[in-house]
Amino acid sequence: MADIRTLNNWDTHKLPVGMSRRYEFGSYEETRQFLDDLASLSERTGYYPSLNFNRTQVTVRIQAEADDLGMVEYGFAAETDAILSHKVAA
Amino acid sequence: MADIRTLNNWDTHKLPVGMSRRYEFGSYEETRQFLDDLASLSERTGYYPSLNFNRTQVTVRIQAEADDLGMVEYGFAAETDAILSHKVAA
Repeated sequence: MADIRTLNNWDTHKLPVGMSRRYEFGSYEETRQFLDDLASLSERTGYYPSLNFNRTQVTVRIQAEADDLGMVEYGFAAETDAILSHKVAA
Repeated sequence: MADIRTLNNWDTHKLPVGMSRRYEFGSYEETRQFLDDLASLSERTGYYPSLNFNRTQVTVRIQAEADDLGMVEYGFAAETDAILSHKVAA
């Protein structure tokens, strides 16, 4: 499981409680690839964040089910970051 | 070209000038299929709206390039509606 201590690029929100991060891409193809990877992550984990995207930006918005963010939310955020860190390392 | 006079389910906005519509789906697979169809429409038209979605909802947000909505924007909205009307008729 990805390391949640590395979640330093995420903004946290109060109403509703949640966290979000915006990712920028060089082309629509890269944006689409990221969205496809996120779809697989959602299908694998059963967790579906709110996604806002246009041609070269994707904002992932994770809202707390209960009153507070928990392992499911932090885990999804860390695995979302891991999608891109694998690409940078690849 | 789809008929723009049928655009009665869209909300219009002032700041920034635009229009949006929310589509609801029965399953994540249907949501994904709609998003894939929208991606093809964007690649075909070269127009990329802002899309917000979660497991069963997609909100399409079309913002005016200039000060006002024009044929490109109305055309994209009408063709977005046409994606689903074909499915209902099919």
